Amino acid sequence: MTETQTIIDSWKVTTTTLNKAEKRLQESLTSIGNGYMGMRGMFEETYSGDKHEGIYLAGVWYPDKTRVGWWKNGYPDYFGKVINTVNFLKMQFFIDGEEVDLYVDEVSDYEQALDMYNGVLTRSFVVHKGEKRVKITVERFVSIATKELCEVQVSFENKGAPASVKVVSAIDADVSNEDANYDDKFWEVVEKEATSESCLLIGRTIANDFNIPRFTVGFKMTHSQTGFEALTPAVKAAAVAVAYEANLAEAAVATIGKRVLVVTSRDFETVTAIKTEIERLVTALAPQSYDDTKAAHERLWHQRWELADVVIGGDASAQQGIRFNIFQLFATYYGEDSRLNIGPKGFTGEKYGGATYWDTEAFAIPFYLALAAPEVTENLLAYRHQQLPQAQHNARQQGLAGALYPMVTFTGVECHNEWEITFEEIHRNGSMVYAIYNHANYTGDETYLLDKGIDVIVEVARFWADRVHYSKRNDTYMIHGVTGPNEYENNVNNNWYTNFMAQWTLNYAIETLPKLSQAKRAALNISVAELKQWGDIAAKMYLPTDETEGIFLQHDTFLDKDLTPVAELDPTALPLNQNWSWDRILRSPYIKQADVLQGIYYFPERFTRAQKQQNFDFYEPLTVHESSLSPSVHAILAAEIRYEDKAVEMYERTARLDLDNYNNDTEDGLHITSMTGSWLAIVQGFAGMRVSNDELSFKAFLPQKWDNYSFHINFRGRLLLISVDETGTKVTLISGESITIKVDEQTVALTKEA
Amino acid sequence: MTETQTIIDSWKVTTTTLNKAEKRLQESLTSIGNGYMGMRGMFEETYSGDKHEGIYLAGVWYPDKTRVGWWKNGYPDYFGKVINTVNFLKMQFFIDGEEVDLYVDEVSDYEQALDMYNGVLTRSFVVHKGEKRVKITVERFVSIATKELCEVQVSFENKGAPASVKVVSAIDADVSNEDANYDDKFWEVVEKEATSESCLLIGRTIANDFNIPRFTVGFKMTHSQTGFEALTPAVKAAAVAVAYEANLAEAAVATIGKRVLVVTSRDFETVTAIKTEIERLVTALAPQSYDDTKAAHERLWHQRWELADVVIGGDASAQQGIRFNIFQLFATYYGEDSRLNIGPKGFTGEKYGGATYWDTEAFAIPFYLALAAPEVTENLLAYRHQQLPQAQHNARQQGLAGALYPMVTFTGVECHNEWEITFEEIHRNGSMVYAIYNHANYTGDETYLLDKGIDVIVEVARFWADRVHYSKRNDTYMIHGVTGPNEYENNVNNNWYTNFMAQWTLNYAIETLPKLSQAKRAALNISVAELKQWGDIAAKMYLPTDETEGIFLQHDTFLDKDLTPVAELDPTALPLNQNWSWDRILRSPYIKQADVLQGIYYFPERFTRAQKQQNFDFYEPLTVHESSLSPSVHAILAAEIRYEDKAVEMYERTARLDLDNYNNDTEDGLHITSMTGSWLAIVQGFAGMRVSNDELSFKAFLPQKWDNYSFHINFRGRLLLISVDETGTKVTLISGESITIKVDEQTVALTKEA
Repeated sequence: MTETQTIIDSWKVTTTTLNKAEKRLQESLTSIGNGYMGMRGMFEETYSGDKHEGIYLAGVWYPDKTRVGWWKNGYPDYFGKVINTVNFLKMQFFIDGEEVDLYVDEVSDYEQALDMYNGVLTRSFVVHKGEKRVKITVERFVSIATKELCEVQVSFENKGAPASVKVVSAIDADVSNEDANYDDKFWEVVEKEATSESCLLIGRTIANDFNIPRFTVGFKMTHSQTGFEALTPAVKAAAVAVAYEANLAEAAVATIGKRVLVVTSRDFETVTAIKTEIERLVTALAPQSYDDTKAAHERLWHQRWELADVVIGGDASAQQGIRFNIFQLFATYYGEDSRLNIGPKGFTGEKYGGATYWDTEAFAIPFYLALAAPEVTENLLAYRHQQLPQAQHNARQQGLAGALYPMVTFTGVECHNEWEITFEEIHRNGSMVYAIYNHANYTGDETYLLDKGIDVIVEVARFWADRVHYSKRNDTYMIHGVTGPNEYENNVNNNWYTNFMAQWTLNYAIETLPKLSQAKRAALNISVAELKQWGDIAAKMYLPTDETEGIFLQHDTFLDKDLTPVAELDPTALPLNQNWSWDRILRSPYIKQADVLQGIYYFPERFTRAQKQQNFDFYEPLTVHESSLSPSVHAILAAEIRYEDKAVEMYERTARLDLDNYNNDTEDGLHITSMTGSWLAIVQGFAGMRVSNDELSFKAFLPQKWDNYSFHINFRGRLLLISVDETGTKVTLISGESITIKVDEQTVALTKEA
Repeated sequence: MTETQTIIDSWKVTTTTLNKAEKRLQESLTSIGNGYMGMRGMFEETYSGDKHEGIYLAGVWYPDKTRVGWWKNGYPDYFGKVINTVNFLKMQFFIDGEEVDLYVDEVSDYEQALDMYNGVLTRSFVVHKGEKRVKITVERFVSIATKELCEVQVSFENKGAPASVKVVSAIDADVSNEDANYDDKFWEVVEKEATSESCLLIGRTIANDFNIPRFTVGFKMTHSQTGFEALTPAVKAAAVAVAYEANLAEAAVATIGKRVLVVTSRDFETVTAIKTEIERLVTALAPQSYDDTKAAHERLWHQRWELADVVIGGDASAQQGIRFNIFQLFATYYGEDSRLNIGPKGFTGEKYGGATYWDTEAFAIPFYLALAAPEVTENLLAYRHQQLPQAQHNARQQGLAGALYPMVTFTGVECHNEWEITFEEIHRNGSMVYAIYNHANYTGDETYLLDKGIDVIVEVARFWADRVHYSKRNDTYMIHGVTGPNEYENNVNNNWYTNFMAQWTLNYAIETLPKLSQAKRAALNISVAELKQWGDIAAKMYLPTDETEGIFLQHDTFLDKDLTPVAELDPTALPLNQNWSWDRILRSPYIKQADVLQGIYYFPERFTRAQKQQNFDFYEPLTVHESSLSPSVHAILAAEIRYEDKAVEMYERTARLDLDNYNNDTEDGLHITSMTGSWLAIVQGFAGMRVSNDELSFKAFLPQKWDNYSFHINFRGRLLLISVDETGTKVTLISGESITIKVDEQTVALTKEA
């Protein structure tokens, strides 16, 4: 939505225009979800214009045969895709027999609003059919109280002469995926039945050639109606439907509620078990009205906000931005299911296919560490631990020892199909270990590290030890042929970040081993020779630097480039990925997202202020921030070196990236995993939160535009409130035991206020 | 075929085994063609086992929508493919009503032979059906006397009790392409008719989304029969067919001839014109029997051999190898049509899709310069000149000035879909200019260079001038982000070969400009500033070298690799492209084909013997020769530095690459463009032919295994015979004016013998 479309409201994303040219963007921005399922802000009823309808179920996916030009050894067989599920929202509205279709109908008083405080999407408008005028209001939510539940309520208020209104409500398995490689439709119907009481459809994902289990999903809908009469239900080839009709006198109102329950074979294996569970849920919910279920759902959202809200005084736009991001993150993942992870588009689109990227470890874990129960982060770590055998398989596919965590995956097996990413963007392995370290560092609890984390660390260390090569000429270990976090270069040699993370992982493994139990150490089976080799490699790892510039080198030949800063580029060239050929991008010095700076961000205590500043001064002017993951890291580092204006500029890009469609691609879905970035920019950036040497510290500044800001964090069993205004920074212990922290380099003892 | 399968016969490729496991390989090795059309050694009749049937028409192709994982700016929309044409060979044989199918039938006395001297493929076998025994002999050729003509003759000799034989002969448009991206069938039927006299089918390639004209092709078949009676013809959905029946007494013989004429919209635009042309051809050929047309065809093959044959004494295997290569090259291209080029698989397979690669300029032009009329080479050069606007378009697609000749093309527009090739393997542009230089150097005639060649050279120079960047730090011009001829590395910086070719092109352009007419120069519109810029770039072009090793560096960081020679690898790892992951290959030091050595090969007079030897000694031990284009260059350089054993080893790999299935991929088709390599290895390698400073010279050696060898070349209006035996080298002027050449560094005046 362009600025004129979205009304700045601190708790809502509202528009009063139906922008047909940007329907997809409006759909993305009004997505909702409950971690179990979610959907784009698609319309329930028919809309014949360009749109991108999508409803997604967490963990229900399809292995789509890899589509490449020329096959290369080591390629994954399939690209795993979150698939558009059976359309259970589907409705049709008719007024005097004519179908409502906002693409062609005359409409007035349009309003669509995502209420983030309550987790409810509403839409209302008056549709004109000849002389008739009917106001239609649609409300929907996916319950966080009952994860299998989606409710829709539609009311029709007659604003003109008497009219008949008909509603057809369906569950339709005939859905497509825009992202399908070979235009397959992914659902087949196993069972269907329709009565005027309820309709049931059991769908199953189509067969595949890769021994990936098929998913079976049951969908049941019941309806409540006021002023409507039920007509005969219909069973179609791939759908079940039921119709309702009402004759509305002038000013009369009729309402219909659609309650849908969705149960999948992820939780209940057989069709029978799925049906039994659906019946159980239907029965359990039967006593509750739409208002009841909605109230239960909203109450839980209020609780979430109580902990997670970041309050910004004096900047409604920033306030809306941070809430939108937190809302969408929680809609995607709230940590209930360790088999799940945080997909980069969540439930808001198909692009990027897979479920899990390194974004989780790099950017999401700090957020969940601070804002969710400790189990949530452990679930995210356990997800990778469970997938260790698959990560070993991935390494074997490349002919290497140890474990290579995938770039994109559902099962742990790599399913991205570009060699320059799959085979080369191996720095991701470092973030798997970093997340384990980060958890231990933040929580001060090494139980997970020593019990399970070490399994991952050792296998990743083994991978690095095999992936390096010894360069005789230089008497160093090198890593050739990688893609760093900056995906605007490929197949570079000695990417500083990758080499640094490999070295750090080897050292971290070596340091951690002595802390293990005898039994655990024996189980890991690390020989003296192996340990010595890790030490040698870490000691002789080549870390390219340039003394003249005083920087770490992004890779061996980076300084040979034409180093014209972004500011001197013709602005029409931006974003580069939409305007330049891939060739030009690759050989340019322009950086998609933090690369050297990512390493500095990860380990703030390992680098001097001068190092931070010199590297920032060198690389940031060459950075185009065309990854949604880029601005937050830069905001945090800029804040640390007190480039306050730059920090705010970067924050603004991350905070309203989707709301303002910065990268011109939000129509495909929201940048879910990078949404943590705006929270990180405030908390680690503006407020300067760090955890070093077992101590929590803050070193805050207040952006000029803001009057104040405050947020809560969980820290080692305490709940803290951090408030920053022009008088300074105040940290309050809301619950938990006393603790000593640092604020602005002063030691502060926090005790519970009376 | 494994060695036991192929009988070493200097003029034939013969097998007496029907090897069902290697049917595809047998098909590849028995391909025939006439430059206009050709086909794999597929059977006419039904064969239900694994096979790869393919008949191809030169220049008849389809733009198949690009299939990539993730789209990148600059990608071509489509991958152009030589498509399998309507199956006009199709026949079915029945004995007493049971269909002959060699995959399941018992067969004896099997023999299949490609007669290279005559250009005819024959096959004979006795098929056992219960007690019945019928000997079937099939003979086919595609005429080089009438390009539109293909003839098949089948005879049935009854070796047992009386039997009925039925033959169904068809033209069938229901064909598939193994290489289709989306499993499309590429032909639709426009018209079909069948009478007992003749059958006609007009096919058209299916529609496409890329504004590429569709091809219409007319196929007509007539039959001649001895002992057979015609049955009612049949018109099917996508085929026309006619059946013949014969009752064969014991020892009786019946014969059927199938004459097919193929006319395409490349020559005749409308369906009417195509039909008229077919009728004209049918009428013109009507008086000629099968034996007549065959004799006319064979006579022309004899003439071709008279000039082109290389005679090797004492090594039947080598003799067969060189003849096979020359035969397949001429079957693919004999220079009649400047709209055509030499596809890497010719008419022998689908792989590599496109029609034209830089192989033509690098490896085929020297062959055609010596063995064909001068117009043939000029046609090959003109092909690129015609496509200059498309090459300019390709450069624009990458955001660059000048012209970028495509990696793969039909029309001149790039249609390969991997960025590391399309966008980066730009050294190909250098070979376009080299071919023009090579033609001028060999012929001593600069007319083409100054009239048309310069258009290409100037646009390629403009491309290089824009593609380089100035590296402030080094005060040199560099070329980053390329793939050199060694495709086992991608996205390297300062590939010596690419930089060298760019520098040479700029200098060649600068040297040539003063020779142009005033008008031509004006038309090219080169400003003083532009010319100065070319001079600056050429003068400051960075050419990476290493003083310690005394070598040119393949690229900036090549020496940082683990430089273990191929000889020390576990032999089971070879070929690497079938055993190693792409990742491992890319970061390894192993070289697919000559890279630095390609540049040294191109310009033998520019490098000292020491430079040649040092670079050969360094790079060859790291080279796996997994491109069919590799061994010939190495054979030539090895011969020059008098590594005679190495030269012979390399020659043997190139000469029998397909016959011995060296790279284990001949089942996909023959390596047509690299077939020139064995000729080059003998002529430029063993015989040491060079043309330098307007002088032809030879410096030959005789491989130990050989008694002698001899060949002809055309040179500047003369025909020369070069004979080498243990007594030395003798060059004889067969026709043309006297000329002075050098043999073993001695000046020799050649005059016509009395």
